[in-house]
Amino acid sequence: MELWLIAPLTALVSIVVAAYLYVYVNKQDSGTPKMREIAGAIQEGANAFLKREFMYLTVFVVVVAAVLAIFLPNGPIMGVAYIFGSICSGLAGYFGMSVALKANVRSAHAAKEGLNKAFPIAFRGGAVMGLAVVGLALLGISVVYYLTGDPGIVLGFSFGASAMALFAKAGGGIYTKTADVGADLVGKVEMDIPEDDPRNPAVIADNVGDNVGDVAGMGADLFDSYVASIVAVMILGQAMGIDKITLPLIFAGMGVLASILGVGLVRVGKKGNPGKALNWGTYLTCVIFAVLTFLATYYLELNFGIWGAAVVGLLAGVIIGITTDYFTSIDRAPAIKTAESSKTGAAINIITGFSYGLISMVPPLVGIGVASAGAFFLAEAFGVSGIYGVGMAAVGMLSIVGMIVAGDAYGPIVDNAKGIAEQSGLEEDVIDVADKLDAAGNTAKAITKGFAIGAAGLTVLALLGAYKEISGAVSFNLMDPLVLTGALIGLAMPPLFSALVMLGVGKNAFRMIEEIRRQFREIPGLKEGKEGVKPDYAKCVDIATKGALKELILPSVLSIVVTLAVGFIGGIEALGGYLGGSIFSGLIFALLMANAGGLWDNAKKYIEAGAFGGKGSDAHKAAVIGDTVGDPFKDTAGPSLNTMITVMSLVASVFAPLIAIYALSF
Amino acid sequence: MELWLIAPLTALVSIVVAAYLYVYVNKQDSGTPKMREIAGAIQEGANAFLKREFMYLTVFVVVVAAVLAIFLPNGPIMGVAYIFGSICSGLAGYFGMSVALKANVRSAHAAKEGLNKAFPIAFRGGAVMGLAVVGLALLGISVVYYLTGDPGIVLGFSFGASAMALFAKAGGGIYTKTADVGADLVGKVEMDIPEDDPRNPAVIADNVGDNVGDVAGMGADLFDSYVASIVAVMILGQAMGIDKITLPLIFAGMGVLASILGVGLVRVGKKGNPGKALNWGTYLTCVIFAVLTFLATYYLELNFGIWGAAVVGLLAGVIIGITTDYFTSIDRAPAIKTAESSKTGAAINIITGFSYGLISMVPPLVGIGVASAGAFFLAEAFGVSGIYGVGMAAVGMLSIVGMIVAGDAYGPIVDNAKGIAEQSGLEEDVIDVADKLDAAGNTAKAITKGFAIGAAGLTVLALLGAYKEISGAVSFNLMDPLVLTGALIGLAMPPLFSALVMLGVGKNAFRMIEEIRRQFREIPGLKEGKEGVKPDYAKCVDIATKGALKELILPSVLSIVVTLAVGFIGGIEALGGYLGGSIFSGLIFALLMANAGGLWDNAKKYIEAGAFGGKGSDAHKAAVIGDTVGDPFKDTAGPSLNTMITVMSLVASVFAPLIAIYALSF
Repeated sequence: MELWLIAPLTALVSIVVAAYLYVYVNKQDSGTPKMREIAGAIQEGANAFLKREFMYLTVFVVVVAAVLAIFLPNGPIMGVAYIFGSICSGLAGYFGMSVALKANVRSAHAAKEGLNKAFPIAFRGGAVMGLAVVGLALLGISVVYYLTGDPGIVLGFSFGASAMALFAKAGGGIYTKTADVGADLVGKVEMDIPEDDPRNPAVIADNVGDNVGDVAGMGADLFDSYVASIVAVMILGQAMGIDKITLPLIFAGMGVLASILGVGLVRVGKKGNPGKALNWGTYLTCVIFAVLTFLATYYLELNFGIWGAAVVGLLAGVIIGITTDYFTSIDRAPAIKTAESSKTGAAINIITGFSYGLISMVPPLVGIGVASAGAFFLAEAFGVSGIYGVGMAAVGMLSIVGMIVAGDAYGPIVDNAKGIAEQSGLEEDVIDVADKLDAAGNTAKAITKGFAIGAAGLTVLALLGAYKEISGAVSFNLMDPLVLTGALIGLAMPPLFSALVMLGVGKNAFRMIEEIRRQFREIPGLKEGKEGVKPDYAKCVDIATKGALKELILPSVLSIVVTLAVGFIGGIEALGGYLGGSIFSGLIFALLMANAGGLWDNAKKYIEAGAFGGKGSDAHKAAVIGDTVGDPFKDTAGPSLNTMITVMSLVASVFAPLIAIYALSF
Repeated sequence: MELWLIAPLTALVSIVVAAYLYVYVNKQDSGTPKMREIAGAIQEGANAFLKREFMYLTVFVVVVAAVLAIFLPNGPIMGVAYIFGSICSGLAGYFGMSVALKANVRSAHAAKEGLNKAFPIAFRGGAVMGLAVVGLALLGISVVYYLTGDPGIVLGFSFGASAMALFAKAGGGIYTKTADVGADLVGKVEMDIPEDDPRNPAVIADNVGDNVGDVAGMGADLFDSYVASIVAVMILGQAMGIDKITLPLIFAGMGVLASILGVGLVRVGKKGNPGKALNWGTYLTCVIFAVLTFLATYYLELNFGIWGAAVVGLLAGVIIGITTDYFTSIDRAPAIKTAESSKTGAAINIITGFSYGLISMVPPLVGIGVASAGAFFLAEAFGVSGIYGVGMAAVGMLSIVGMIVAGDAYGPIVDNAKGIAEQSGLEEDVIDVADKLDAAGNTAKAITKGFAIGAAGLTVLALLGAYKEISGAVSFNLMDPLVLTGALIGLAMPPLFSALVMLGVGKNAFRMIEEIRRQFREIPGLKEGKEGVKPDYAKCVDIATKGALKELILPSVLSIVVTLAVGFIGGIEALGGYLGGSIFSGLIFALLMANAGGLWDNAKKYIEAGAFGGKGSDAHKAAVIGDTVGDPFKDTAGPSLNTMITVMSLVASVFAPLIAIYALSF
């Protein structure tokens, strides 16, 4: 038996475990009729979104697949691999969202019996997504590689996954913030009614949004990075000599095992701290991965430099996660100082939060830098090409993605659970339990966002290496004018992309706000909460969905077309510089926006917990403005950038053979 | 006679013209006793700031000069050149500020007789600064080069100028926004009294701030870039063969002549548009420069590739200025849409403005990229090294600095004039004239900021080339792990610097706000505007000054120490990557912050002019919050970054010989 077949085997195990957990969640009690009704509305809204998204996506995927089939060498196979990649990623997202939409109401119901009953339902619901992502990703790669034996074709699979990620992450991000900003601005600010109040017409759209953006979106994003990192290393391995091609698959297989074990070990007591439980689960998974791969390296006589590089990557991921946590946590200096600054008004709150957001990018940038240099030199010290080591650092960092996604998908499940508990009028102490579950979700979310950005960073560096091998470029020297010009254009792309996406949220939120106001104005008794009067939830879901997909078109098309234009006009070196520039500014804005957004959110929560005048004070109003600015930062523009830079890198690598031949030359 | 002596000759002419204009401004009528009193208070405040700044600066300069003298080869001479550079820059700033503080009250007085009387006083006041900057810079370089014949020593002169710029620009920036934010938040927002109301204790500090930040700061900043671009090209010329060393001096001399002519040609009719007059002056100066250098190239049989590169740079500068104008102008789509978005609250105003700010960096980044590639290939086509062409593009862009600074310094003069007119209760129609002068100043300011960033961008690219020559590095290849890690660390520096500076403003504004509130609380009759009751202006000036210099220490020291640390630990290639990374993120944040800030300002003004509910409406309140966020963006953090990246590049070049020998090697 070939050794690398451990990858599809563990992938299958992962899928089986996911299915088992799905069944477990599904057989839990789904609560009172009122709760089922609300959960049903969320489910309906989510399905409406997914249906429309998949419709758009199908058109997009078919067009791109046709382009690949026509123009590329190996075109038809590439096209098929591309479609297969987008289907696998879409399947994982659909699977994960289905269970999330069941786990939310079930864990809300179980909250009546205490934390230790509700937590496993929510967490296992998240784990389905996590294990489905790694299972389907690894299985997909294995199938494509088994059938073709060519990492170049696996690149097509990866490209397909990235198209899915772009739709799920950026489209979902626009959707979720449209709903959130709209619901908050009219509900909380204008009408002064609480969050998640059933009178608010956008409340269902808002609940749907959490699932769309954070479950399906984050899952597709990490699916994308996970596949891309493995493919990049396979390509680098091929360039170095045949025996290393399947090595990342073996490591990834170990990572899947570690994630399954880690998921199984997460538990929390009756008075336990679910946030701690999630974090310990992550740390444990890391340790298991390091031990498993150490043993594999020892017994299979693999290269310890490569093992070291993978562990360096993993460590960097953990460090980035922890520093992100510091800069966004509710009980740390940045959030507290930002909260305090709200006393002098919204402007100072925003300046302070933005400034800490700027500072927060220092540790991850230095971390990615040191990790890549460390992995490079470790690999070289053991006789392996340094850039291969950098790729393995990315694979190592992403090896525990199953666990990371599980923790992340837990977030929207408990956020929804809290919403359902409030909307269906459960008792104070039940809502209290739901609150505790939710707070843990926010911490997990901050860490996984940092992790996702770090992983994307190392992955695109590995992809840059892969691109260099495929294109045959000699170096990307900043003193070469084409590289430099490419880099300057590349730098401009992520800011342009985030701006278009955020302006999209603004435009869409505007439509949403008009609709919410209209309903409050025109539906008699709605504002007063008269018995039996219900807003038109579906209309709001529809507005958010249509608008989100419309606003996504321009930035997506630009990120593909400009990449090709730079390549075909400037040549392979210019395109290398362009990728470098876009990686740089992509990392910067992804980190800044995710962290500043998280920080403003928690500064507001810190005040709501009673500090500086508490809820309703001027400081609170100022902090709410900061939080609203942060919403599209942290949930739309910031996290979409990971995906965007991965897509651009993959476009470059996929078209590199053509560019090398047909580019205008200077 | 040696040809390059045209440089010191034109520099002397420039200084003589500046002195003549100084005398012209000085002999104008300085108005009523009330006006003189207010102007006197501003002057006193400005002198207090300068005195304290020069005190700190002296300590800093002496310490750095001692370090240079001890550690560098040619140390003592370098130390002297360094001190000389900081003195020349300081002198230009002092000279310029003195005349600005005279021109403000005199043009306010002349406004009684109409636009065509007031405008020349204000503009010529600004022109003194412009001509003093280019005169003293070019004379200083010439003297150092004449005495030593070594461009390496001129680098020391440039480094001295950059130290001055850091203090004037970043320190002045913190000062001016401390005063502005404090005055606005308590005055306009809390007390609901108009801007520039004499009851506001911070009003003098605010008026001083305009001079400190925009006259002295911008002057020192462009002095710095101007010198650095010339030195970088001299070093590149030396590396290529001796006959090109003095070429940039000849071009700079032509630029000074063009600026003198341009300044002389700016005039405005009784019903004229001063904004147009300023812009036409700039375009005219460009044309004169292009013609003069063409003739010189033709008759002196110089290289037309080099001439072309210089003209390409100049064109890029103009294009960057024009696009900046589009993104920040009050009557263009970005400002109007941002104003409109204020209807849905401060958060949407901020998201919209920020998004346009992100988009606004596309044209300048592409412009700098295309200009550098164009200059590179033009030079190569005529048989000159490409990077030399890039340097000459920077020299070309900066050749018209005399005119640019003149237009820029005009801004705070008329801003002050308007303030003085209001505070001393002049008639409506006089204030109207002052208003028109002021509006033109804001346009000129936006263009010159874009120009300054573009010029700094090309200059640091030229400096990167100079650093490569001095250090002996072969290439800065992004696939080299040390270059990459350096780049990632370099990327983090400008955001860190801006964050520290903005948090500094926040901290300092906090102190200021407390003081303003205290005065309103404790001085009886102040709030009501009782006859004879005056606030303690000096106390506010003092708080702003002390705080600004204190908050400047950490970011300045970091930008020097980290540069040296990266060099000595990572080696010359890592430092090259580091400079590249810091240039990239420095450009990004400088453009984003300057443009978003200008945009928010004008969106607010658009509403104040009557749109979307006008002054006092909810939209206006939202826009005021956006404007307040933009204040430290556009006047502190953003423009300081030019200086910061120039300082880091110069530190690298100055210490390159040591780093090449003593760096740890991998």
